[in-house]
Formats: sequence, C-alpha cells, structure tokens
Amino acid sequence: MIHETTRGIAARNPQTPTPMPVRKYVPFHEQIDVSLPDRTWPDTRITKAPRWCAVDLRDGNQALIEPMNAERKLRMFELLVRMGYKEIEVGFPSASQTDYDFVRMLIESGRIPDDVVIQVLSQCRDHLLERTYDAIRGAKQAIVHIYNSTSILQREVVFRSDVDGIVDIALQGARLCRKLEETVPETTVYYEYSPESYTGTELEFAARICNAVLDVLEPTPDRPVIINLPATVEMATPNVYADSIEWMSRHLDHRENVVLSLHPHNDRGTAVAAAELGYQAGADRIEGCLFGNGERTGNVDLVTLGMNMFSQGVDPQIDFTVDGGIDAIRRTVEYCNQLPVHERHPYAGDLVFTAFSGSHQDAIKKGFEHMAGRAEATGKDIDELTWGVPYLPIDPRDVGRSYEAVIRVNSQSGKGGISYLLKTEHALDLPRRLQIEFSGVVQKHTDAGGTEVTGDDIWRIFTDEYLPVDPDNAAGLEPWGRLKLRETRTVSAEDGATTMSIDVLDRGEELTLEGVGNGPVAAFVDAISHVGVEVRVLDYAEHALSEGGDACAAAYVEALVGDDVLWGVGVDPSITTASLKAIVSAVNRAARA
Amino acid sequence: MIHETTRGIAARNPQTPTPMPVRKYVPFHEQIDVSLPDRTWPDTRITKAPRWCAVDLRDGNQALIEPMNAERKLRMFELLVRMGYKEIEVGFPSASQTDYDFVRMLIESGRIPDDVVIQVLSQCRDHLLERTYDAIRGAKQAIVHIYNSTSILQREVVFRSDVDGIVDIALQGARLCRKLEETVPETTVYYEYSPESYTGTELEFAARICNAVLDVLEPTPDRPVIINLPATVEMATPNVYADSIEWMSRHLDHRENVVLSLHPHNDRGTAVAAAELGYQAGADRIEGCLFGNGERTGNVDLVTLGMNMFSQGVDPQIDFTVDGGIDAIRRTVEYCNQLPVHERHPYAGDLVFTAFSGSHQDAIKKGFEHMAGRAEATGKDIDELTWGVPYLPIDPRDVGRSYEAVIRVNSQSGKGGISYLLKTEHALDLPRRLQIEFSGVVQKHTDAGGTEVTGDDIWRIFTDEYLPVDPDNAAGLEPWGRLKLRETRTVSAEDGATTMSIDVLDRGEELTLEGVGNGPVAAFVDAISHVGVEVRVLDYAEHALSEGGDACAAAYVEALVGDDVLWGVGVDPSITTASLKAIVSAVNRAARA
Repeated sequence: MIHETTRGIAARNPQTPTPMPVRKYVPFHEQIDVSLPDRTWPDTRITKAPRWCAVDLRDGNQALIEPMNAERKLRMFELLVRMGYKEIEVGFPSASQTDYDFVRMLIESGRIPDDVVIQVLSQCRDHLLERTYDAIRGAKQAIVHIYNSTSILQREVVFRSDVDGIVDIALQGARLCRKLEETVPETTVYYEYSPESYTGTELEFAARICNAVLDVLEPTPDRPVIINLPATVEMATPNVYADSIEWMSRHLDHRENVVLSLHPHNDRGTAVAAAELGYQAGADRIEGCLFGNGERTGNVDLVTLGMNMFSQGVDPQIDFTVDGGIDAIRRTVEYCNQLPVHERHPYAGDLVFTAFSGSHQDAIKKGFEHMAGRAEATGKDIDELTWGVPYLPIDPRDVGRSYEAVIRVNSQSGKGGISYLLKTEHALDLPRRLQIEFSGVVQKHTDAGGTEVTGDDIWRIFTDEYLPVDPDNAAGLEPWGRLKLRETRTVSAEDGATTMSIDVLDRGEELTLEGVGNGPVAAFVDAISHVGVEVRVLDYAEHALSEGGDACAAAYVEALVGDDVLWGVGVDPSITTASLKAIVSAVNRAARA
Repeated sequence: MIHETTRGIAARNPQTPTPMPVRKYVPFHEQIDVSLPDRTWPDTRITKAPRWCAVDLRDGNQALIEPMNAERKLRMFELLVRMGYKEIEVGFPSASQTDYDFVRMLIESGRIPDDVVIQVLSQCRDHLLERTYDAIRGAKQAIVHIYNSTSILQREVVFRSDVDGIVDIALQGARLCRKLEETVPETTVYYEYSPESYTGTELEFAARICNAVLDVLEPTPDRPVIINLPATVEMATPNVYADSIEWMSRHLDHRENVVLSLHPHNDRGTAVAAAELGYQAGADRIEGCLFGNGERTGNVDLVTLGMNMFSQGVDPQIDFTVDGGIDAIRRTVEYCNQLPVHERHPYAGDLVFTAFSGSHQDAIKKGFEHMAGRAEATGKDIDELTWGVPYLPIDPRDVGRSYEAVIRVNSQSGKGGISYLLKTEHALDLPRRLQIEFSGVVQKHTDAGGTEVTGDDIWRIFTDEYLPVDPDNAAGLEPWGRLKLRETRTVSAEDGATTMSIDVLDRGEELTLEGVGNGPVAAFVDAISHVGVEVRVLDYAEHALSEGGDACAAAYVEALVGDDVLWGVGVDPSITTASLKAIVSAVNRAARA
C-alpha cells in the first residue's frame, strides 16, 4: 500500500512511536501466503441465505465460565429451532458427559424435528469417535463433525509432527467413521471435516488434507460432505480470509458435492465481515452463535449476519420475530449464556434505535412524515412501501422494537439530563430501557407544550405517567388509572407457596381478589388475572431510596400487558408493595394508551 | 454471486422463508452504483498507522443518554492525549453551550499540548460558524470541521433540494469560513469537510461537492484539507465501502494536498473491517471512538483498530499501555461514557484472554513451553522472541493483562474472579462491598486449606457462609445458625402500615413473633427485636435471577447487628422472603462470629 509520506499534512504527522513491543509480531503475510490476483469475490453480492449452522450449544457453550445446564441447553436448542435453524451443533459428546446426556435426551425424547439435523463434534481419536456414534444412535440423521489442528504453529508446538503425520490423523479418523456408520444403521450420517486453525495453515496443505479426507468420505450428491474452514483465530483482514476461501473453493476436489463452510472467530473484530466476504467468495454455509457468543472474542454473530441480509432485501430464512421479537430472543440468550448483549449491538442493543441529536431526530421525523405522505399519495399501507428513513437502516418495528427520540433536558445548573435529574433530586435510578422509554414520554409533552422543560416539569411528567394513582405524589395532578391497590394480605408458607388476598379498586369498584404463586409478584399477577388483566413480568429492578429499614424502595417492572411491553414504577416503604405498585403502574399505563 | 442451487446438500436445504417483511428493503447496489472492477486495494496491506482522530468528545458524547459533564470530558480528553492522539474532536460548540464552555476552558487553561490539534464540528450555517470561530479563538491551531448532508434520501426527505442547492450550502459555509479566519489571526485554522451520509450519496455527486469545496478552501502542502467520507449509516459490505474510497481517491482534485479521512459507523457490525479496507484503498486518516462508542451501534472502535495493527507488527502510534494497561483505559472510558465494555470485546473484554477447553489450555501451555525453550536455546529474553502461542493472537502482558488470567480456569482467587463466577454461574450479582467481604471469607478458607480453590469450592463456601440454614442449598453442609424463618403472615394496610406475624425457630425453639413497620423489612426487624436481636438495615439490593414473575430473587442486606456491620444474602422465589432471609443470614453470621 502506497502512503506517500511527503503528502500534505501527513508530512507533519506529529504521532510518535509507542514503547509497545511491536517487533514481537510477525505480519500475517509473512506467515501464510494467500495470493489471488484474479479473485472474483469483490464483484459478487449476497443474494440468498447460506445454510446456517448454529454452534451455540458447542463452541458458544464451551466458552462460558460455567457451561449451560440441561435446562438452559434445552431452552437454547428450542429457541434455535423456533428461529428456523436446521443444523444445530449440540455438543462434543465424547468429551463431556453433560453433552452426551443432552444429546441422548434430545434423541430419546423425540425433541428433534424431522427437518433439523443435529451435529456433534469429535477429535479424530478412536475411543472418542466410538463414543460419538454411541451418542447419536437412534437419531434420524446427524452430522459427525471431525477435526484436527493443521496450522504451522500447532504442528510445531503441539503435535511436533510433519505434515504427513497430520494428514494421517485426519484419515484415520475418517476411515474409522466410515466403519462406525455400520453401528448406527437407522441414522443417516453426514460428515463435516474441519482443518482446525485453518487460518494459520498453508493453503496448499489445507487443500491437500481436505481432499485426502474427501477421498475417504466419498461425497455424493445425496450425501455431500461439509468442508469447514475455521478462522479459529482471526489473523488478518477479512479480504484475506475471502481470498483464501475462493482459493480453496477452486482447489477442493469433488467440489460439486462439497458444502464449503465458514466458521469465523472475532479476534480482530471483523468476524461478520469475514463471513460476508467469505460467503461472497463461494462458501455455502456459515457456522456461528447468536449475538456472537463463543471462544474468547466470540464466534461470528448469527443475528447480525441474518439481519444484515434482511436489511438488503434478502430473506435470511431465520425468523428474528419469534417470541415477539429480537428483545425476547435476546432475553433467552442472555439467560442461557449469562452474558449480556451490549447496548450497541447491531439490531438488538438498547441504544441502536435511538437518536439523541436534534438534527438526527429532525431528519427521522421528516423521514416518517415522508413515508406517511407516500402512503397517502399511493393509497398503500405504509408497510407496503420501501423503507427510507434517515439514520434508521431498518424499521425497528420489523424486529419488535420502536424508534426512540431521546431528548436531553438540562437542569438549571446546566449539567446532566433527565436520568441524572431523577437520580440526584429524587434518588430514582432508572433502568436503561426505562430511561429511553421515559424520554419518549417527555418528548411527547415537549412537542405538545412547545416550551423548554424544567426539572420540575420532568418530575411532574414522571409522576403523572408512572405514579398516577397516589394523590399525594404531586400537587395538582388528577388521579387516573384503572386499578388502585388498597390492602394486601399475604401468607408465605414454608414450602415457598405464597397466597395473597388483595383489595383493589377496579375502575372505582371495590374488589377482593385471590392469587397464588411462588412469591408475591406471581401471586399478585395471578390475582389480577381474574379481572382480565394479563401481565407477564419481563424484568424488574428495585433499590432503596435511602438507608435504613424505614426507607422507601423504588421498584421498576418491565411487563408485557396484553401486547404492549412497557414499564411501571412503584415507590413504597414496603419493597413488596413497591413491586406490586409498579405492576399496577404498568397495567394502568397500558389501559391509558 | 453464483450459488448453484443444484449443488449437493444445498439442493435439499430445508430452510424456509420467514414472514419478515423482506420486500420493504432495497438492496444497496440498487440505490448507489459503486463499480470499480480495476480496484487495487485487495492487493495492498496496512504497513503504517493512519492519522488518527478521536471523536469521543463529539460523536461519542452525543450518543450517550447522559452526556459527559465537564469533569468527565476533561478526563476523556486527557486520556486521549496520554494515549497519543494528536487530533481530537472536542465538540460542536455552536450547538451546545456545554461544548462551547469546554472548548473555551481547554484553550484558556492551556491544557492543549502544542502537538495536539483540537477539532470542532459545525453545520454550514452563518451564525453557527461565527460562534464556532468564537469558540476556537486563542488556540494555537484548530481544525474547523464543516458538513452538510448529501445523500439521496436526505435530499429528498429532509432538504427537498436539488443537487445544486446542496452544493450551495457547502460552498456558502466554506466561503464564510475563509472570511472568519481573519477574526482569529493567532490561530492556524485547518479545514475538514464531510459530505454527511456519504454512503447514501452517488459517488459522482460526492466527488463534485468535495471538489467544489476544495476549490474554495484551496489546500496547499502547508495547509492541506481533510476530506472525510463518513459511513454515517453503514449500508453495505465493507468491500463496497473500500471500492468507493478508492474511487473517490482517484476523483478528488488537489489529491496531493488532501487528507482523505474515514468515519465508519457500525450498523452492520463491520465498521472495523470498513476502516481497514478503506484505509487499504488509499485513505490517510481514520476517525473513531475508544471501544466503539458512538451514535446507535457506535463509531468504529479505535482500540480494536490500533491493536489489530499492533498484532501485525505495525506500530499504531497509540499507546495502549498508558496508566498501566488496557484495563485502566477501559475503566476511564467506562466512567466517562457510563457504558460497559463487553466481556468479548477484542483485546479488552474480560473473557478474551481466557481458554476454557482442555485442548486449548493444553495447546497454550505447550506454546508457552515452546517459547521458553526457544529463549533458552537462543540465550535471549522471552520478550525478544517473536510471539507464537496458539489461541492467543497477542501476548496479554503487552496490554497489561496476565498469563495467569489465561490458564486459570476453575480456580478463582481475588475478588474479581469470585464475583464473576457467582454472577455467571449462579446469576448472583453481588454488591461491591459484599464482594470485598466475601473475598475475605474465601481467603480464610484458602489460607487454611492451602490448596487451589475451584468454582465448586467457592459456591460451597458461599452457600455455607450466607445461605446456611436451608439444608437444600448444598449437599454435605451442616445447617447452622440461630434463627430459621418458617412462615410469615403480612397485612399491608392502605395507610402504609405493615403488620407481620412470623413463625421462627430460635435456637431450635418454635416461636411466633409480631412486628409492625412501614414495610415487611421494618416489621420483620421489629418482630425479631422481641427476642433481643437488634438489627439496623444499612443498605440493600435485590435482583431477579431470571425473567418472569415465577423467577427467584436474590436479596443482599448490609446490616448493623449489634456492633458488627455485615452482609446477609437471601434467595427465594418471593422478593419479600428473600429480603427477610437476607436479614436472617446477617443475624446468623453475626451470632456465628
């Protein structure tokens, strides 16, 4: 790459060398030669979905400090099935008894749909392969995924073997697989072979070992073989990975019966790009994890990949609206992995459909108005029009989200905004998603009023919106809301069952309702279901407003009320009552809307 | 792109179309024509650092729910200076009084080093530009960064203007800048122009407007002009962005005196790739934010970009070891932005130098041994050798992380590890002071036992210490403790008074106690005071262990019991009972001590 050091401002670049030990590192191109001057992939485009393979239960699970238990595994498996994944790597059963038991449970309980293929990983060692075939016995079909490490570094450091020895490991495994097939006659066995640490392997050698394995596995149109080329460690810019994939695609034998598969990791933060460019370079299939979980920096993120296709008018053949939308998917994955999805995750982060700057908000507003105008002019529904709103690459509603214009209100002192003000002046520490929701509420008031918003205004708006039925909350506000909580009587038995009797005003009518659950929240939700209020609590948080047992508590509940996801807030000296008030708040807000 | 649908397994791909509204979206290539069959960038490599420009204080700050106050801004500015950034966009002073005040403070207090240039953003409007020059008055040098939106969509939806009108906006701004220069004779003013929403702009038009602006700004070798081509919204795969950059580089006039700058956003999760490929395509400069903060999905991540170069033996000219290493940088940025860095962030995430699988750990161990052997054989220090350890793209020590963190998997010592384990494995999110208290408890056990502590050990210690009286908690633990809670009966009256009747075992004796307070915690504390237990609750926190009203809650109570301040923990499906159990836990621990 030519960077003329004499060019303009660059000539006087004041940046200076660092003391970091740069010389320890050998550039990738000095380790591996990837040369493809006649590459064609930069002129291709993605026009259809690849075959997807979700490896959350194997590569993803393996990268958790504490791997999923059976219950979390099953939730993940069933989510993947609902979303439409047809190939799911479910474990490394020969290395882990938990994985083995899980695979057996899936098969024996008949939980694998006919059009879903489970995939199991194994090293190319005899006793491991035998155990692997034991694990899949009885399945209608399965992909046996065998691998051995092929990189220069691992050959030198780990295996201390020449290339012939490395090829032998793979071939011995492949041959044993062919024999073991006979032990599972009721199962259609497909194969996947990975030259592990492919990115650190000379291309010629990678092609040699893959072709040798293919000769043993004898791919046919009816039973093609998957050749998976993992970026076990991401080592170069993604165009280099794409070059290598196109090179391999040209040099694999039996190409017409080979499913060329990608398995990028994210060490350089470019796994999504590597998958996309590698797919453009001729791959057929992509392995990854939801939200990019996986070893170290993660496997490639299947959500971002799929939604990227969607945003280009290409059906990903994966449904990101199951369970109500991407937030529900995210909650399940966060539960299974016990790892958060970041606030700025593309398509699913809390902040990605927000706009903070006035000029962005203005442009977005005009974009929505323009679409409404187009709909009116053409007599079409707005959802029939092509999408075009500045700063919003997709319509948030398509994944069950909504656009949030977050406005900033400076208190008189000039510092902080809405959340800061609520925290410092009222000791309320709002969860992030509630902060975003509330800023939309404030926005509506400012649009209506057209004046500047003061700190007092914000508190008044907050009180009216979330704490409405208590007439002591703020002077001059009209009480409103369907439900009003009066008294609760609770019995918590030693076995954990909570029975609750509540006195409520329901549209002014005094009622006593009974509910049962394993805690007061569940019992309360049960009780109000008897008057037709359907609530599911999605999230809650609670904190003291000040120290001491006499202190007030604030409770925040994110709830699904009917079809609406919205927050409620309760403040009460009793932590229990605060939670119940928060539910009432959400219920009343849903009824008001 | 050719994907033969008749090829092997792909022919029987069982993936099915989704109900998602794919047809709303127009593929990028149908919106913007980017064609460059004779591209050269895929054959280039990155061999030196670009000019960096950190926009954390502007684009990053603008995207925070709570923008930084002056103190946080200054901490960010000083961190960026220490790391070696020489161009720092410090705000949009004409749009924000806070930004204006901050710029004035930097200049008037002499906080800008001589080799650092501040950059200020402004729209091309007269009064905003005048205010911008007021803001920079007295600075030794400054980059005035002007922009207007040029995309097809914004022209149609926001500006309702033809292309000539859009060019006029830019030219009017550029001309006024030239005039306003005279008002700040003591300041060397450089210029940057951004055709905002460049990625949605026809390339011909982007070149036309940039060249028109360049004619007005008259770049010279001494005073080159920065042309910044933002992926304001990332709209296509990164190779397309690179093609467009190479095209622009060929079509810009005054190219020898133009600094071609990139400003990628991350809507498709490929901003790092876009920056790298765009840089290969001939750009000179990259704008971004530390850890990828910024509008929506973020600006391109300067840490990942810099460390990617480092891992290839290219000095990024940014020091990621200031303040002790990347963790310290991360803490400062998390403090300033009030946003976390994700566990799997390349180079800085909690999990990125870990290995969980046995085969990875074994390979890493052999890699370290091999390096030690090489050092011995050559008589060199290990740090003089080229790096080569499987699964570790860089030596963690180079960014202030440690080898121990890499190979310790099931053993945890130090408070970070313990808390992390409890959080990931048991979904318990301990308050910080409790983390500190518990690490002391673990320390005592390790000192006594003298052996390594596993994750199971930690959970056993935690259970025994904080959750002792429930015999279901862990097999083999002896129940202990003075109090055991059996049943509670609570009445919460409308006036807020809570009366509680509790059945407890007190040293094995069955008692029923009555208490009154303004919530169950207060009533419970009152009740147990009747058997001589004096408790004052100092702090508490509570969270769900998973979603749903049926979920378990964990409660943490810091209490003064007699003269001891100590924590108690309670886990129960009922949020109330969890709190009461936490108090019992604290009381029992005080009695045990």
